Amino acid sequence: MTTRHNNIRADIGRLWASLMRSAEIGTTPKGGLKRLALSADDGVMRREFVEWCEAAGCKVEIDPIGNIFAFRPGTDPTAKPVLVGSHLDTQIKGGRFDGILGVLAGLELVRTLNDHGIQTRHPVALVNWTNEEGARFEPPMIGSGVFTGGKALDFALSRTDKDGITLGQALGEIGFQGKAKINADMFDSLFELHIEQGPRLDDAKIQVGIVTGAFGVRGFVVEVTGETGHVGPTPMAKRHNALVGAAHVTLAVEEIGWSEAQNHGKSTTMRVKVEPNLLGILPDFVEMTCDFRHPEEPSVIKMMDAFKARIPELEERSRCRIAVKEGWAYGGMRFDADCVDLVRDAAQKAGYSTLDLLTEAGHDAMHVAEVLPAAMIFTPCEGGLSHNEAENVSLADIEPGVNVLLQAVLARAGAV
Amino acid sequence: MTTRHNNIRADIGRLWASLMRSAEIGTTPKGGLKRLALSADDGVMRREFVEWCEAAGCKVEIDPIGNIFAFRPGTDPTAKPVLVGSHLDTQIKGGRFDGILGVLAGLELVRTLNDHGIQTRHPVALVNWTNEEGARFEPPMIGSGVFTGGKALDFALSRTDKDGITLGQALGEIGFQGKAKINADMFDSLFELHIEQGPRLDDAKIQVGIVTGAFGVRGFVVEVTGETGHVGPTPMAKRHNALVGAAHVTLAVEEIGWSEAQNHGKSTTMRVKVEPNLLGILPDFVEMTCDFRHPEEPSVIKMMDAFKARIPELEERSRCRIAVKEGWAYGGMRFDADCVDLVRDAAQKAGYSTLDLLTEAGHDAMHVAEVLPAAMIFTPCEGGLSHNEAENVSLADIEPGVNVLLQAVLARAGAV
Repeated sequence: MTTRHNNIRADIGRLWASLMRSAEIGTTPKGGLKRLALSADDGVMRREFVEWCEAAGCKVEIDPIGNIFAFRPGTDPTAKPVLVGSHLDTQIKGGRFDGILGVLAGLELVRTLNDHGIQTRHPVALVNWTNEEGARFEPPMIGSGVFTGGKALDFALSRTDKDGITLGQALGEIGFQGKAKINADMFDSLFELHIEQGPRLDDAKIQVGIVTGAFGVRGFVVEVTGETGHVGPTPMAKRHNALVGAAHVTLAVEEIGWSEAQNHGKSTTMRVKVEPNLLGILPDFVEMTCDFRHPEEPSVIKMMDAFKARIPELEERSRCRIAVKEGWAYGGMRFDADCVDLVRDAAQKAGYSTLDLLTEAGHDAMHVAEVLPAAMIFTPCEGGLSHNEAENVSLADIEPGVNVLLQAVLARAGAV
Repeated sequence: MTTRHNNIRADIGRLWASLMRSAEIGTTPKGGLKRLALSADDGVMRREFVEWCEAAGCKVEIDPIGNIFAFRPGTDPTAKPVLVGSHLDTQIKGGRFDGILGVLAGLELVRTLNDHGIQTRHPVALVNWTNEEGARFEPPMIGSGVFTGGKALDFALSRTDKDGITLGQALGEIGFQGKAKINADMFDSLFELHIEQGPRLDDAKIQVGIVTGAFGVRGFVVEVTGETGHVGPTPMAKRHNALVGAAHVTLAVEEIGWSEAQNHGKSTTMRVKVEPNLLGILPDFVEMTCDFRHPEEPSVIKMMDAFKARIPELEERSRCRIAVKEGWAYGGMRFDADCVDLVRDAAQKAGYSTLDLLTEAGHDAMHVAEVLPAAMIFTPCEGGLSHNEAENVSLADIEPGVNVLLQAVLARAGAV
């Protein structure tokens, strides 16, 4: 069978059927997905994915952190595999496409190559990264972190969920603690397709997002310390209510986000833990998780500095002690120019409308980009909604991105 | 043995020994008490209290909600008992005296009468109310609520703690679900001694607080509803972060408290429940528990109205929906004039300095005052600190109040 490989198209109907099968595993009442990393449902999904890969002729290997790799051989035994993938785990109230699209579009790519009898010089390898979301085990993107060497395996395996189960135990329970020795040096490059999780493509009715890099992110934990006391007799002037301190912090974080909103900066207070959080008692402690994001790395640093500079004022207004106890930084990088050009070429040749943008969310590809040439492709998603059960895309939304992934990977892997 | 009863004094050293024995049951690392209602430790304390009462010649009876009554007979079979008591349960990070002082001062009163061979026309009855704090089962003051008929027994027994254990099960587990048919009609009056839990007596170095009534209280639950979304790509203008809504509510509640602070009004946000409260997700729901307190009932109503009037503005600023879902009112009443006069007379005869004040906290006596003549006496406590492990009093702080309790009860019960 001979095919002009640059004209082939993925079978979007078949991909959609796979996505809809995935949407049956961990379905929520509102039609989203709750498929937490290494849960029983994640186990069901992983086994089904492995079966699909094997049926498509791939050799499947599992590494010690549970990342699943499926290899389609190439013709050149010295050429390293081109990686394609994302993640199959979801948020606790997640959608049906976040991550899943990237994994199953990789599978569809292999199936399409098979249909057309196309061989490539480089092998093509699919990947499902373990615990991308961080909804069960923290930090997020831990599977790709171990792959790149950024996170130690022992550290990753010892992370615990809210019930005290370690990631290692959970891997064992679903039978996905593998022994394959797999590391970044073994691969050529990575391509990840993902829904945008924001509204820019959908608002502008643009078909393909060419992801050139990532927003700078500064995450941080704020500890607000007050003093317990009885909510009745304690006079206003003697109170040190940690929830009042937390409210001042939340609004300061919010204001700093708005001050950079016209430049696409943003800020979030996303999580709080309050003690003792009981009727009748002034709370004496709040731990808050916040972040700032900005397209420009120097600006996100400024936002963080602006927050720190406000702490004395927030302490005075709330009469609590306020301290940034932990901070982390990621993003702020740019993807590999050659890989990005392959994406752009594929989109242009197909006549798709495109927009260059930066990812504002964290993705495994950002970890991998530290050690391998990498690129990302975004598809539009309805209203930009994500991390939400109502997250949605149509076939028409994803078809361009899936075909751009196919052609970019084919170009990189070298159709023969 | 003959004694001029109006000169007798309680044995404060013996009372202190009982308080310090209580302080050994459920001790926290910081030297406070965690003796949640109907916990194993509460069971130990209750059994010890029952032994002490029986050793002092009292007949002990337990009612179906677990209130413990200990009766010292009077000389007149037609005269109803004068009740004296408070509660032995504590907050989760509670002190050694809140409630406990009132119960054990009652016991000391009986022991002192025994020492001096004093009989009274009315019986004297001690009481330990079940679940005053509300730290394990809500609402608080549930034992006295059932006693007065304000709360149905079935409702009270079906309350659950955070582990889903019902109050009825917990009573059974520690063996304190009694069968005695006891109600308010069987009693003459109630006197409750309590630490102030505020700083007014301690600041002014006044020995005895004469509690003439209670602050008006309006408690309420606020529900803030936003929308989940990814904390990365969602632009500031498309966010509906429920924690931002909660911060605006907290600061509005705080401002309304400050606006009445010079009149001793106050406000609190004490508890929040956040969903989904996870990394990476904009929270879509916060349930908040707040209250307003004011010495004057009309003013606390105004504070509540002022908050409700601000809701549209808070909704606009946070772009969340904000609703008051549940509200409750208590206090705002005045204690029985005759009982209060007995307290005042006893203090004046003993030459103690006094201050008339209103209780700003909820107490069982406020429930009982709806159905029986009642009064409360406050002792100073160090720095006004309470609902805190560092809550503290000295012997000198409590001696005047304990003796005022003794003399007021003796006057009401009629020494013979």
